[in-house]
Amino acid sequence: MKVDDTAYRTIWVPEDGWSVVIIDQTRLPHEFAQVGLRTVEDAARAIEIMQVRGAPLIGATAAYGMALAMHEDPGDSSLAAALQRLGRTRPTAVNLRWALEEMRRVLEPLGENARTAAAYARAAALCDEDVAINRQIGEHGLAVIRAAAAGKPDGQVNVLTHCNAGWLATVDWGTATSPIYQAHDAGMNIHVWVDETRPRNQGASLTAWELGRHGVPHTVIADNVGGHLMQHGKVDLCITGTDRTTARGDVANKIGTYLKALAAFDNDVPFYVALPSPTIDWTIEDGVASIPIEERSAEEVSHMTGRTESGTIETVSIVPEGSACANFAFDVTPARLVTGLITERGIAAASREGLAGLFPERADG
Amino acid sequence: MKVDDTAYRTIWVPEDGWSVVIIDQTRLPHEFAQVGLRTVEDAARAIEIMQVRGAPLIGATAAYGMALAMHEDPGDSSLAAALQRLGRTRPTAVNLRWALEEMRRVLEPLGENARTAAAYARAAALCDEDVAINRQIGEHGLAVIRAAAAGKPDGQVNVLTHCNAGWLATVDWGTATSPIYQAHDAGMNIHVWVDETRPRNQGASLTAWELGRHGVPHTVIADNVGGHLMQHGKVDLCITGTDRTTARGDVANKIGTYLKALAAFDNDVPFYVALPSPTIDWTIEDGVASIPIEERSAEEVSHMTGRTESGTIETVSIVPEGSACANFAFDVTPARLVTGLITERGIAAASREGLAGLFPERADG
Repeated sequence: MKVDDTAYRTIWVPEDGWSVVIIDQTRLPHEFAQVGLRTVEDAARAIEIMQVRGAPLIGATAAYGMALAMHEDPGDSSLAAALQRLGRTRPTAVNLRWALEEMRRVLEPLGENARTAAAYARAAALCDEDVAINRQIGEHGLAVIRAAAAGKPDGQVNVLTHCNAGWLATVDWGTATSPIYQAHDAGMNIHVWVDETRPRNQGASLTAWELGRHGVPHTVIADNVGGHLMQHGKVDLCITGTDRTTARGDVANKIGTYLKALAAFDNDVPFYVALPSPTIDWTIEDGVASIPIEERSAEEVSHMTGRTESGTIETVSIVPEGSACANFAFDVTPARLVTGLITERGIAAASREGLAGLFPERADG
Repeated sequence: MKVDDTAYRTIWVPEDGWSVVIIDQTRLPHEFAQVGLRTVEDAARAIEIMQVRGAPLIGATAAYGMALAMHEDPGDSSLAAALQRLGRTRPTAVNLRWALEEMRRVLEPLGENARTAAAYARAAALCDEDVAINRQIGEHGLAVIRAAAAGKPDGQVNVLTHCNAGWLATVDWGTATSPIYQAHDAGMNIHVWVDETRPRNQGASLTAWELGRHGVPHTVIADNVGGHLMQHGKVDLCITGTDRTTARGDVANKIGTYLKALAAFDNDVPFYVALPSPTIDWTIEDGVASIPIEERSAEEVSHMTGRTESGTIETVSIVPEGSACANFAFDVTPARLVTGLITERGIAAASREGLAGLFPERADG
């Protein structure tokens, strides 16, 4: 999407033809900085320290990480080591494993001479596929927003979203934001409630930033606020992304998504989850029981980074010395709370039948 | 309760016999500072800028604010002006209006010569009554904690609380924390999940601080986390405070309480609300429809204050320039989600019948 009227993707190969450039998302919203990746270790670290995050972008970065590994050494042991190194960067996102499996499938049968070019080609294609998928998600989601607008006298649609399932989480368009950008670009009166999304503040720092740069009206709220807004008719629909969706439609997403889904259900507010089909894990049914939930550093809870009045970036401690903090990164929203799953092929009911109807060739696998 | 082995209340008259000392809660957890109030305007400002907060302590501070006004000028116009000034400090807490009404009832009939002494005496009595009430709340709540412990092999009880309904929110003991302190002091194995409570972080900065200073094991979590913990059996019960409870048991409390109540209901976790009876507003039934919800400054959302590594207190901006923020301070939890109301007279069902059974003389009024 656009930043200061220039169109960007979140990951690309610059003029040198082999290195990889990403946007350093840990420095947003205060600085729009780009970082070059030159080794598979660079790519793995960028995923781990969340310079890139969001399930689709993690997958794309892992794919380019494999290309960097092949650029350095296309041998079998390098290939195996790169798959292993990248595979252990983040435990929850299924796209990571999907992208690495795809790279393995393409690269393993090839001779060493052919691997590097094939790796870059497959990584680039994987990015293009992500963009196409997200554009399609937006088209299907736009119909939901149009329907909501039709029911309101002023045509204004208030969408609540959690975390960042924006273009910054993907290669372009975003998942949850794709319908929002398409509605805005079509001239609709759309306003977004942006959950701050503690502890890493991806809503306040990333979603608000990208919506603002693209010109979409939005308001940042604490994660505690959504239920109150829904009780008072100030939310027309919720759209979030997901890091992993089970075969029956349970949805693992950023911690706190479950609480918003409960509030939406309690107030008859439609709750949609936007997802590219690689996010579906056809091997599991019960998300609460089966999806491993990443625990991250307590410092993400106890400390907060921002910009001081004098313009410097400073990190401050916000808990008392000696108090422990716990940091669970995701939670699982049961399918019963999800109105629909917005995929590149259309909107499915959050159920095995719903998903299998849209993806019969995967559901049978 | 204790701070560094010294027992404190949150508000008291020092040796001069007429000024009023409070703990500046805006400087916790980084600094334990005391502030002297000398005028009714000092008291009003302390409430507005939340140097004191929590429904019972707001009431106590307003009562002492009336005493300071009478100390300055015990005339009728001073009395009326002080009632008005203090009455407009915070819109949601019912204790504020209750305390001011009580001071009016005592002071208006008196001659000017008698008003000052009567005001100090009534304010002091009101504080003592608050302490006694909260001790009783703790005794009734302790039975709930004992029952939870009896059902667990290791006897450990994990209590989740939101915001600060601790001794800092009252004159002493706290409301939600009173059962917790009593359980801890009785040697029980109790651990508290402390919701950070954005945007003002009263959980992370006040509840964690007071529990830590008293030695109660606790863990600070982002507000997004409670649902996940409940899905995985890591919360045995929730106890929160309330700023206003309706005659049928709807509960207005810090924004986000409703979301935790939904999660507790969805996971069969008991959800208790601890309250002194002055918090009950017998004049209204439907809390969502009838309780005004205070909107506070956007800066409380967009900025965060904490301690830098070098020890200075710094405020940082955490949202992009140009992004709007909204700041609703409370939400309403419908009675249907509340397991019980822990009052100074015992535990009531969250219903008109439940409350009227414990407070027949008020319910009839």
